[in-house]
Amino acid sequence: MMKKVKIKVPATVANLVCGFDILGMALNDPYDEMELTLRDEPGISIKHEDAFNLPESVHENVAGVALLALLEEYAKPIGFDVVVRKHIKPGSGLGSSAAGSAGAVVAANHLLDNFFSKEDLVRFAMNGEKLASGVKHADNIAPSVYGGVTLIRSIFPLDIISLGCPSLYVTIVHPQIEVKTSDARQILRKEVQLKDAIKQWGNIAGLVTGIVKNDHALIGRSLEDVIIEPVRSILIPGFDDVKQRSRNAGALGGGISGSGPSIFMLSESEDIAHRVEREMIHVFTNIGVDFKSCVTTINDVGVRIIDNE
Amino acid sequence: MMKKVKIKVPATVANLVCGFDILGMALNDPYDEMELTLRDEPGISIKHEDAFNLPESVHENVAGVALLALLEEYAKPIGFDVVVRKHIKPGSGLGSSAAGSAGAVVAANHLLDNFFSKEDLVRFAMNGEKLASGVKHADNIAPSVYGGVTLIRSIFPLDIISLGCPSLYVTIVHPQIEVKTSDARQILRKEVQLKDAIKQWGNIAGLVTGIVKNDHALIGRSLEDVIIEPVRSILIPGFDDVKQRSRNAGALGGGISGSGPSIFMLSESEDIAHRVEREMIHVFTNIGVDFKSCVTTINDVGVRIIDNE
Repeated sequence: MMKKVKIKVPATVANLVCGFDILGMALNDPYDEMELTLRDEPGISIKHEDAFNLPESVHENVAGVALLALLEEYAKPIGFDVVVRKHIKPGSGLGSSAAGSAGAVVAANHLLDNFFSKEDLVRFAMNGEKLASGVKHADNIAPSVYGGVTLIRSIFPLDIISLGCPSLYVTIVHPQIEVKTSDARQILRKEVQLKDAIKQWGNIAGLVTGIVKNDHALIGRSLEDVIIEPVRSILIPGFDDVKQRSRNAGALGGGISGSGPSIFMLSESEDIAHRVEREMIHVFTNIGVDFKSCVTTINDVGVRIIDNE
Repeated sequence: MMKKVKIKVPATVANLVCGFDILGMALNDPYDEMELTLRDEPGISIKHEDAFNLPESVHENVAGVALLALLEEYAKPIGFDVVVRKHIKPGSGLGSSAAGSAGAVVAANHLLDNFFSKEDLVRFAMNGEKLASGVKHADNIAPSVYGGVTLIRSIFPLDIISLGCPSLYVTIVHPQIEVKTSDARQILRKEVQLKDAIKQWGNIAGLVTGIVKNDHALIGRSLEDVIIEPVRSILIPGFDDVKQRSRNAGALGGGISGSGPSIFMLSESEDIAHRVEREMIHVFTNIGVDFKSCVTTINDVGVRIIDNE
């Protein structure tokens, strides 16, 4: 009988406000579902059972190119059949493409009795990010694979550090507008003021310390971005209003998820997280922009293996 | 009888390679000695029992201006007589001026039964830094007051976080050349490349995590500065050679202490730390620059109260 596995792949929040390109966090909701079946002959097939019209050709699919990278380092001639039911909307800023590639290689590695290390898996999955955005980045891939909050200290050579999983609630709002990752990158200035950089790394150091120590107040004080957010937030209508009202409603802080347009806010209680969601609903209803919102928590395991036959 | 206290004030290493303006670390050696006597009438007197010819007039002395700031917030009309025996050479890059002002206010606060918080003391002592270098910075003051490694997340408002005290050995070499803090600041570029800033904050996040978790390998991997060191190290003859040889001798890493010219290296064992010292001695002997060197450890308490009568 063929080996087969079902998984849930978490959405992820890259950057975490001040940690541009180095921090990422896995969420319990939303998530993609995937099924992988191990074949004893070479070849990869990909089938999408969702409404997003993503390419199913192996070389054009993020799961496909990630699995190709994995197979290249696996000695035996095997293959995979992949079925994807995507729920994380592409272009939401919640790591939709990373979920595809990270999920595929974690599931494949499970079928191969964990032949590869987690770091290997991140390396393979980054090929999906390269396909999706032109850049090999790991700030969505790493939390998908490791769970919790991850630090990518360096990409070349790859150095990933698990920072832990603060006991916080996350409110997400996804305004249904399009922000292309490539555009969001384009508008950034190539140079930054040294004094801004110093402020930023003070906040990054504070945020990382707060996460490692589960110090919520310190996390809140450190969630400030003086470099990226002032530029990117202009692409997201209602952003400043959401941020101000969320803070007033008791959120520790938050900002743009990845390159947007989704916005995330962290709160210490479920009650506050729901109050924050109501503020977000208020803002986007008022300005007449369609949106989706939810309250969730930080996912501490990454990809979940659901079923194994 | 008058209340009197004797203290030892630690030398400090600011920046810690990649943490420019936000990180500092206290050392067990060298240290200044100070004696403070509480007076029951207003007035401050300062006497130096060392050979550095520092000004003893209250408004021109770092301890003097720090104590003035403290007295301004203390309701009662009291004063202090201060005797300083300085061993941390001014201009060494080991926090000599910070030791003067931090020591004075910690000792004064001890005599006032800890009326003020540690944060207050840092605030008072920063007036000494303002006098010495023109800028209110806290990266030497904070570790002097708190001990261990400290993060200054923000100066305005002041936000200091104790990161802990990794169990490491520190080798220090002080080439006897002059590098003025103001010059070392002047030569820095006002703008930095965003890609360099990203690399820097990845390393800062790694270093801070390594310190909090006492993860020596992570500390070693993160001790890299792509922004400040390449510019400032040209002011220190032998720097690249010392760094390379120290790494080869087994040091985790290190760099310029504060704005220099002292260089520090961190090692996991006393044996390696002494091997590193021999490499430093070799380099400066070879290029014919006078120097002082020592092996010490990280001071986990800050200012030490020695005697109390």
